[in-house]
Amino acid sequence: MNKMRSKEANIYLKMEPRKKAQELMFRSFEGSVGISVEHVPVTDAVGRVTAQAIPARLSSPNFHAAAMDGIAVQAAKTFGASETTPISLTIGTDAFAVNTGHVLLPNTDAVIMIENVHQADETTWEINAPATPWQHVRKVGEDIVATELLFPSGHLITPYCIGALISGGVFQVPVCKKPRVLIIPTGSEVVDWREQPDIEPKPGQVLESNATVLGELVCAWGGTFLAHPIVEDNPDKIRQAVSQGVEQDIDIVLTIGGSSAGSKDLAKQVFQALGEVLVHGITMMPGKPLIISRIAEKPVFGIPGYQVSAILAFEQFVGPLIRRMVGLGEMKRPVTTALPARKIPSKLGMEEFLRVRLGVVNGRMVAAPLPRGAGNITTITEADGVVRIPADSEGVNEDQPVEVELLRPLTAIEDTVVVVGSHDNSLDLLADLLARQGQARLSSSNVGSMGGLLALKKGVSHLAGSHLLDTKTGIYNRAYIDRFLPDMAVKQVNLIFRDQGLIVPKGNPKNIQGLEDLRTGELRFLNRQRGSGTRILLDYRLDQLGLDSQAINGYANEEFTHMAVAVAVLTGAADTGLGIFAAAKALNLDFIPVVTEQYDLIIPEAYYHWDKMQALLKTIQSDLFKTRVASLGGYHTEKTGQIMG
Amino acid sequence: MNKMRSKEANIYLKMEPRKKAQELMFRSFEGSVGISVEHVPVTDAVGRVTAQAIPARLSSPNFHAAAMDGIAVQAAKTFGASETTPISLTIGTDAFAVNTGHVLLPNTDAVIMIENVHQADETTWEINAPATPWQHVRKVGEDIVATELLFPSGHLITPYCIGALISGGVFQVPVCKKPRVLIIPTGSEVVDWREQPDIEPKPGQVLESNATVLGELVCAWGGTFLAHPIVEDNPDKIRQAVSQGVEQDIDIVLTIGGSSAGSKDLAKQVFQALGEVLVHGITMMPGKPLIISRIAEKPVFGIPGYQVSAILAFEQFVGPLIRRMVGLGEMKRPVTTALPARKIPSKLGMEEFLRVRLGVVNGRMVAAPLPRGAGNITTITEADGVVRIPADSEGVNEDQPVEVELLRPLTAIEDTVVVVGSHDNSLDLLADLLARQGQARLSSSNVGSMGGLLALKKGVSHLAGSHLLDTKTGIYNRAYIDRFLPDMAVKQVNLIFRDQGLIVPKGNPKNIQGLEDLRTGELRFLNRQRGSGTRILLDYRLDQLGLDSQAINGYANEEFTHMAVAVAVLTGAADTGLGIFAAAKALNLDFIPVVTEQYDLIIPEAYYHWDKMQALLKTIQSDLFKTRVASLGGYHTEKTGQIMG
Repeated sequence: MNKMRSKEANIYLKMEPRKKAQELMFRSFEGSVGISVEHVPVTDAVGRVTAQAIPARLSSPNFHAAAMDGIAVQAAKTFGASETTPISLTIGTDAFAVNTGHVLLPNTDAVIMIENVHQADETTWEINAPATPWQHVRKVGEDIVATELLFPSGHLITPYCIGALISGGVFQVPVCKKPRVLIIPTGSEVVDWREQPDIEPKPGQVLESNATVLGELVCAWGGTFLAHPIVEDNPDKIRQAVSQGVEQDIDIVLTIGGSSAGSKDLAKQVFQALGEVLVHGITMMPGKPLIISRIAEKPVFGIPGYQVSAILAFEQFVGPLIRRMVGLGEMKRPVTTALPARKIPSKLGMEEFLRVRLGVVNGRMVAAPLPRGAGNITTITEADGVVRIPADSEGVNEDQPVEVELLRPLTAIEDTVVVVGSHDNSLDLLADLLARQGQARLSSSNVGSMGGLLALKKGVSHLAGSHLLDTKTGIYNRAYIDRFLPDMAVKQVNLIFRDQGLIVPKGNPKNIQGLEDLRTGELRFLNRQRGSGTRILLDYRLDQLGLDSQAINGYANEEFTHMAVAVAVLTGAADTGLGIFAAAKALNLDFIPVVTEQYDLIIPEAYYHWDKMQALLKTIQSDLFKTRVASLGGYHTEKTGQIMG
Repeated sequence: MNKMRSKEANIYLKMEPRKKAQELMFRSFEGSVGISVEHVPVTDAVGRVTAQAIPARLSSPNFHAAAMDGIAVQAAKTFGASETTPISLTIGTDAFAVNTGHVLLPNTDAVIMIENVHQADETTWEINAPATPWQHVRKVGEDIVATELLFPSGHLITPYCIGALISGGVFQVPVCKKPRVLIIPTGSEVVDWREQPDIEPKPGQVLESNATVLGELVCAWGGTFLAHPIVEDNPDKIRQAVSQGVEQDIDIVLTIGGSSAGSKDLAKQVFQALGEVLVHGITMMPGKPLIISRIAEKPVFGIPGYQVSAILAFEQFVGPLIRRMVGLGEMKRPVTTALPARKIPSKLGMEEFLRVRLGVVNGRMVAAPLPRGAGNITTITEADGVVRIPADSEGVNEDQPVEVELLRPLTAIEDTVVVVGSHDNSLDLLADLLARQGQARLSSSNVGSMGGLLALKKGVSHLAGSHLLDTKTGIYNRAYIDRFLPDMAVKQVNLIFRDQGLIVPKGNPKNIQGLEDLRTGELRFLNRQRGSGTRILLDYRLDQLGLDSQAINGYANEEFTHMAVAVAVLTGAADTGLGIFAAAKALNLDFIPVVTEQYDLIIPEAYYHWDKMQALLKTIQSDLFKTRVASLGGYHTEKTGQIMG
């Protein structure tokens, strides 16, 4: 157990808004970081940035060349030729056969295409139209003139550019040297996956991933990196790693982790001992616990350890510094405008980088916020874009368009089918099959069946996954559609039938047989959220069995997905919970079947005939989909793809 | 000299429209090319494409973790705490100090932030608000749940993805194998720059660049390449290279050059001997002479030798095939809509890929066509976008918006200052300095001074470079501005004064002293185009000297730039021409001064205060610009940056 920290330690002493901190950073390192030039062979130059203006050394072509197959002539000798007064040219004297690319002989200045020449006899060609001077001739320097500018400074070299460089005789290219970034992961809890690739980390251990991610980002932004081995939470060892780093041929040093203001956060004290801390803390989320310091005139950053914080701290500070050092301007992602799928509150005084999923629904770009946790890498891998909510804003309303920076091409987003509703593992399979065909991208948000219908009503999704039982009739979904979407024509297409049951630990140690066992209140149950199909199903069955929900221990504890329920059972946080077989099987848990339920896709007519939707429907009707779903266990596909209700 | 070909040989026997040829290609190789899987370490996976659905192996976190520094408690024990009724918790029994990331002890389910805790004494903490269950706790699987889908098939792996893969315990990633492409450059005229990097190619020789460009494109589109040495125009040697290629572990073979229908075009006969030619010729420009063939079930392409043709043939055929083999869908470039800067005629029956410069002028995106030559690589390196003119169109009018595929980010185009007008080498310097500062991009088109004023009138440029002498008053530009832009308020800012004179070969072998020497008609003169400032200057001086322009040998021969005139003198195509000192010096020619002229920038008031324009003006006023211009020779910068007239 750790020594208790004083409250005062938990304060960022030099906290700044992002923009101000960026300006301070650029100003502080203006003199010590700058563009260095190196010469690389033209074959290694793609992706590099020119460090100087690059003039051509050679002209291209460097000779007058025939641009067609035909005969080279002196144009003046062809003047007057016509259908009625053809002109004869003597081969080898007045006219010379040439192919495309051949050198034009002296005293010729035009080429007549072979199609327009008639060979009268062995020694004579006849033409019946004049040639204009320089027709079908590529003149010296037509493409490139020696000494003229091929590329200015700061030009990003593409594959195309290589053609111009070689043709212009530039075989060694002066480019901006890539900044070298030393990355030092820190933390006693952090373990290197390479050392035990098949072993699961122990509780309290975390697999190091930030150093690899940041290394890849360094490369993507134009630098090159060196990865230091993981350093434990020991100020002397961290100090040693940093001070060795700044002494080497290194331009920027990053430590990862321990950049906050807690008792185990050592970065600040190390940086203060070695140099000067310029900024500690940025009023942005994620990314708040960033340290910018100057040690031996070099920029040394303390990068926060949460994965998304680390990425944002990099992209807002380290990346822009690298780009300046390689001669590139600010990186600007393409942007689009979207309507929030729901009201997005935000903390005043903090600039928030909200990750969103995007989709075009009913002709409008809709942005659905992803969870905000700075430690959840999937909130950025699943994001299509980022919405910046300024520090002086308390959030945005649903009817308020927001600017979104795109993380994926707009075309991919336009091809995205947005499904919002109940979670089922077969949706993952569907997403994979659709992606494999390259026809559509499936973006799914899990908010329960009722949430799915409401999303359709609000016009923020293309379809909903729903398994809402009408407890009066025993019929699924129709009654809820009628109630919640009275004015919307929809198709109800069965995705699967699936077994719902009690998920219990392997071997069923408490010997649970069914819902009746919850009666005593001794078992710790974990519930699903209100509005979910599973919750309705539970209440229906409890009612049928005459069980009082209030007597169930844990009835008030809610989770949002089947998998979350299974995880809780796996870790012992609960003894059991109602969920699907697939979730139990995935985590190697046991399963007590309770009921088989119907899970449908609710598709508004407006999107039913959209080609992406038809591709989706065709996929769920395929044998491949049914076979793969069946292999998960607990699924029944007899009615899959059929229109229900 | 070559043997004359028959006219019949000049026919493409299997010519197809692009789209039809693409479909035929995909159909023909459906069975023989497909996705192969390989496993790569996660550290090598960025930029690769998943070959399978990738489920998580581990959950993240894999333990309930404190998400704040503070104390871990059982929430139930805190219920009822308030300002007036604080609750005391015993350290080590009811509450445990934790830092962010620590494992939550059994029987605790919430963390209270250190800021909200009061240490009453050595063994007791006091709280005055209750904790809700799971507050400030990262639960098992909050980010990633083992067995759930991390990424579907066909997912392009970004640096972010690496974080999710490592956290999910996926250290070896199943990705699509990169197709291997063998590139065989052919042609007896083609020489390898590596073999004689300091020697200028002889007339008739061409530096090989296509293999390098295509190799880089192969990589950019997702493949990997092997470069074969250059093969001379010998059918046996080409056949040998191709047949060895298809026998190896190669997926696609490209030959470059000789793919047309001339006597020296050997690719088709080689492919026919080894396999089947599927397509010969595409109704597209550039890129027409493409061959698609199947040899030993493998795709073998005959790529045209002109640089832009090679690139387009690759991007329309080879690239899409590679993308299919790496599991990616069609590549779609971002598009925008633009108005043509002038009417663009196009050949019926041919789909044209027209390269254009782009700029936003007066709030409208304007597309200025670049030269169309398929052999001119600079028409694509200087292009901001490509306009496709369909085969069934005879072109587009000025008032007809066209779709443009972007080759540069839209943001770079929005930062572009478009200058159209007379050519001067100092504009290259200006472009370089602006690029170096990262503040603006200068895009310049050389159409002569008059053309520059007309471009302003049409609203397709931001400023014009002009040196138009009013021969009545001796004053530059003002009279022309008044005549051509009567309704436009403009600023006239001096860029430089420069010496104009006769450019003559080194050593001045014909002992030319001035314009008077042109009188006899013995010297071969090369003129500039009508409307250019230099042409007006020439006519003015001829008039002053009482010389008859019709007596000058070559007065009717026109070139469009100073450099083109200098090149003609260098190559002996002309004995002399009027041009600027910088052009003569650049090509190591001699120069007979005739007159010093004024060269101004004509800037409409509407753009004068635009920040990019102000950056440009600040740059030309800088000592750095003036020093660099002066070092070119023949320039005078006393009035540079001053408002004239």
